[in-house]
Amino acid sequence: MIRKEQKIKVAFQGEPGAYSEEAVYSFFRETVNTVGYETLEKVFEVVEKEKVNYDIVPVENSIEGTVRQSYKLFLKFNLRPVREVIHKIKHCLISFPNETLKSVKIVYSHPQALGQCSKFLEKHKYKIIPYYNTAGSIKLIKEKKLKHCAGIASERSARIYGMKILKKGIENNPKNYTRFLIIAKNVETIPTGNDKTSIIFTLKHIPGILFKALRVFAKRNINLTKIESIPIPEKPWEYNFVLEFEGHMRERRIHSALKELKKQVTFLKVIGSYPCGKFSKH
Amino acid sequence: MIRKEQKIKVAFQGEPGAYSEEAVYSFFRETVNTVGYETLEKVFEVVEKEKVNYDIVPVENSIEGTVRQSYKLFLKFNLRPVREVIHKIKHCLISFPNETLKSVKIVYSHPQALGQCSKFLEKHKYKIIPYYNTAGSIKLIKEKKLKHCAGIASERSARIYGMKILKKGIENNPKNYTRFLIIAKNVETIPTGNDKTSIIFTLKHIPGILFKALRVFAKRNINLTKIESIPIPEKPWEYNFVLEFEGHMRERRIHSALKELKKQVTFLKVIGSYPCGKFSKH
Repeated sequence: MIRKEQKIKVAFQGEPGAYSEEAVYSFFRETVNTVGYETLEKVFEVVEKEKVNYDIVPVENSIEGTVRQSYKLFLKFNLRPVREVIHKIKHCLISFPNETLKSVKIVYSHPQALGQCSKFLEKHKYKIIPYYNTAGSIKLIKEKKLKHCAGIASERSARIYGMKILKKGIENNPKNYTRFLIIAKNVETIPTGNDKTSIIFTLKHIPGILFKALRVFAKRNINLTKIESIPIPEKPWEYNFVLEFEGHMRERRIHSALKELKKQVTFLKVIGSYPCGKFSKH
Repeated sequence: MIRKEQKIKVAFQGEPGAYSEEAVYSFFRETVNTVGYETLEKVFEVVEKEKVNYDIVPVENSIEGTVRQSYKLFLKFNLRPVREVIHKIKHCLISFPNETLKSVKIVYSHPQALGQCSKFLEKHKYKIIPYYNTAGSIKLIKEKKLKHCAGIASERSARIYGMKILKKGIENNPKNYTRFLIIAKNVETIPTGNDKTSIIFTLKHIPGILFKALRVFAKRNINLTKIESIPIPEKPWEYNFVLEFEGHMRERRIHSALKELKKQVTFLKVIGSYPCGKFSKH
């Protein structure tokens, strides 16, 4: 289980100030140290090699959908979720303290963030320049001393790079949440009464077979919260299925559903069961 | 239907040389004109407003998965697929004619393309710089006359920008295909005996309801080729489902399945039926 009293290390993907890092602090408060890595794969690797205690991994955004790469990495590594964290994404326009909404002409950010703030950007007639990273766009503007430029990133990025928030909450759709899983090595959670379970499985390509797999859950009244197909890179147009449902694998009905499912699939991996985050109710 | 004999206009998303544009020519040969637009939404808009005859729209990549935005746009616009096109993605390392694999030090491209060529890039110890677009990275190197730099993009990009292919087919996984749909306004296809149908629907959030929806297809032995959940942006953690299956909506069993499905869902949109592309067999 997560122990908050000691200074533990949590890995995330991205530059300091990334939304993933913000999510870590929204859950752990300031009792942990964070370490950023360039790729999500590296983030899985460091907890596997026990260089850090936990990872924070984005699994879904309420607007953009599932982060398929995270599930591919759950297949590759043997790590377990210990907790779901739901974090509200609030985009900020950030620049030097002497800039204003009027003096800014050009805005840098990740294409997804630019897209999510399109109405604000159009209203102000800003020129937009796509960049590969949100927090990185603030770092770029700061380091290159770019005049009349701003970036779109998290509140935390402004603080880290000593820049000013010109406007907060500039997204078109304020209902913008990312679901993260906090994962670790060699852990097992106990049922809390408010849990979810994530699994990945592969089926033969036979008409009706997915229907049969879902029957296992339907007949036990297990509430599915997610179904997603993840491509198998070596086999074009073949898929692994990700399923998430309410309940803990130590509960009898979940245990028996998984046992029955195992007979129908060609491959099954139970990623794990974990307490639901706040605001995660479906 | 598609008339190849006259010079028709096809819109795609991206810079000239984009893989989407390459896919247009792989299907239509040189009998059409192509027009690139910055966003996928714009691409839908121009065929809706009849400024072009057809669009080419990526719907899935065999490694990365479904392009969810395309299905969101199928919801927003009333356009019909007329044909599926499967295009092999072959990444090329492209630079000025005087550069060689050895003289190059830095490689620009879209993060997805960089990731898909990671083994080649590591072997040559190139420094990588993410850029928002594949073909755009070649344009950048050409226009800024960047020395010792190369980009990763399509064969076509090298031709368009008058640059040299230093190495072709540098991807880790040679099985890299993108499925496109060619779409148009006010068209209807006729069954060819080798068709697929795409639909989008919404369900109430009740345990077992997806299972019941899939039963409609299972009991008629209809082969599902795709299931995908697409987030509803206004309602976090609620989804539209995309389903694709073999058969044409003018066939009796497909028609009756859709009629039965309609009674179970809160919303149903039949995107359309279209002939399968080559290599699309599941």
